[in-house]
Amino acid sequence: MVGLGLIGASFAAAIKHANAAGLVLGSTRSQQTLKKAIRRQIIDGGSNDLATMASLLNKGDVILIATPTLSVPEKLSVLKDALARGVIVTDAASVKGDIARKAKKIFSTIPADFVPGHPIAGSEKSGIDAVNPSLYVDHRVILTPLPQTRKQSLRKVARLWQVTGARVSTMSVDEHDRILAATSHLPHVLAYALVDALSNQSRHKDIFAYAAGGFRDFTRIAGSDPQMWHDIAIANRSAILAALDEFEKSLSMLRRAVDREDGATLIKTFTHAKRARDRFSRLRTPTVKK
Amino acid sequence: MVGLGLIGASFAAAIKHANAAGLVLGSTRSQQTLKKAIRRQIIDGGSNDLATMASLLNKGDVILIATPTLSVPEKLSVLKDALARGVIVTDAASVKGDIARKAKKIFSTIPADFVPGHPIAGSEKSGIDAVNPSLYVDHRVILTPLPQTRKQSLRKVARLWQVTGARVSTMSVDEHDRILAATSHLPHVLAYALVDALSNQSRHKDIFAYAAGGFRDFTRIAGSDPQMWHDIAIANRSAILAALDEFEKSLSMLRRAVDREDGATLIKTFTHAKRARDRFSRLRTPTVKK
Repeated sequence: MVGLGLIGASFAAAIKHANAAGLVLGSTRSQQTLKKAIRRQIIDGGSNDLATMASLLNKGDVILIATPTLSVPEKLSVLKDALARGVIVTDAASVKGDIARKAKKIFSTIPADFVPGHPIAGSEKSGIDAVNPSLYVDHRVILTPLPQTRKQSLRKVARLWQVTGARVSTMSVDEHDRILAATSHLPHVLAYALVDALSNQSRHKDIFAYAAGGFRDFTRIAGSDPQMWHDIAIANRSAILAALDEFEKSLSMLRRAVDREDGATLIKTFTHAKRARDRFSRLRTPTVKK
Repeated sequence: MVGLGLIGASFAAAIKHANAAGLVLGSTRSQQTLKKAIRRQIIDGGSNDLATMASLLNKGDVILIATPTLSVPEKLSVLKDALARGVIVTDAASVKGDIARKAKKIFSTIPADFVPGHPIAGSEKSGIDAVNPSLYVDHRVILTPLPQTRKQSLRKVARLWQVTGARVSTMSVDEHDRILAATSHLPHVLAYALVDALSNQSRHKDIFAYAAGGFRDFTRIAGSDPQMWHDIAIANRSAILAALDEFEKSLSMLRRAVDREDGATLIKTFTHAKRARDRFSRLRTPTVKK
């Protein structure tokens, strides 16, 4: 494990719970977090020095990098010189294209044992104190193998995620980034924008005090970790801007309808959206067979 | 009770549960809904003919109009001719200014026993089948007395809502509409716009299939009743447009920051919003003393 925040610590805890690895080692910058992880038996041991830890690994071992999106390339650089051949490297970053591009720069050729991945199991909570061995149960994990990725390494990473209870599927890097921009990154930007707008108003205390459950649900994601979402916004810039364009078209259309008291357009759009939302809440994800 | 949807039926059920009224009568257009309400003991009896039911009431009795926002004035018109003096009329519509203006037109002078109100206890569920006697427990009810409203009538309506478990507060019509535009009406418009935008994309099934919990929470309100939200969008037009202006300022600012990879602005805005969201989730509403 590289990184012992919510994502990394929960993965480590799930793997240890399931006895799915001989040894779970962790590396994280904070000495305090490392000690906590060992004390709580989230990991068996570890080091603040990633290169040292990485040099202990052998062919077939798996490294999961679960640090903020923009810091993943830096970890890959360290691993490049420290890892034995055949050690499998995967990651948990929310944006895949940016990492694939940077990995190509770092390694010149994408290594056959590099398996980019993304567990869709975020939370507005973060850090090791939010650790939850059941975090991934029934959640989706998307792996985005590159043309160079070895099938055997892909299968090994998929199996580890399945051990945590996740439903694993694969898709291309571009498709992943486009889908996540639409369903996750854009909603976060909208929630941050809404809460920012409301909190700038003079009587914002009153505004928030009377907010109901719908508002709580709608803005829950604005409580997410700013550093993490800063990284995602920058790493997935173009897909987010494209999703924002589509959203702004729909919003302008609705704005015009409200302005003109165009009831027919309001009913049509609200009904269309409600149907899509109702259909969606019955959907399940296609998964890789276990 | 005028109207036996989620709001009206749940109010009636709560009042009957608490034995807080001698008799709970209901009026609704659908014969089927009326029968269902009686069979399930949500009301003691009722009629499809509002004027007939209204003529049975005496001074001190309370009528709650819980029909879609734009239909409330039509009910007030019927009640104007049918009600005995001193019968208290309140409503549950989500927009108060529009109803106050229309009431003034209908009655010439606002009646002293008219107490506009709004229980903030919506749900994406609607209709009598969603009835829930505990719907209002710990939810806010805002009463917006007009200058003409008699204190005694205000207190009686407040007490009835308190019986349902709600926390009752009062404010002006304008303040209510401005606050609700920001915390409820605007978020609904945004959620409808987002789901509309996504469902227009060619591969929308894939998009929805990979959506996670954050997206589910964020778009839950897009499953709300289109007719109800059509009415609200039209009745609270100007406050919604004003709230939308504020939101669009914040969104443009964030869009520009993403486009320019302006990390400092992203971190600053996300952190500011997160702090506001975290503060808000600890807030409670000021309430009228029981």
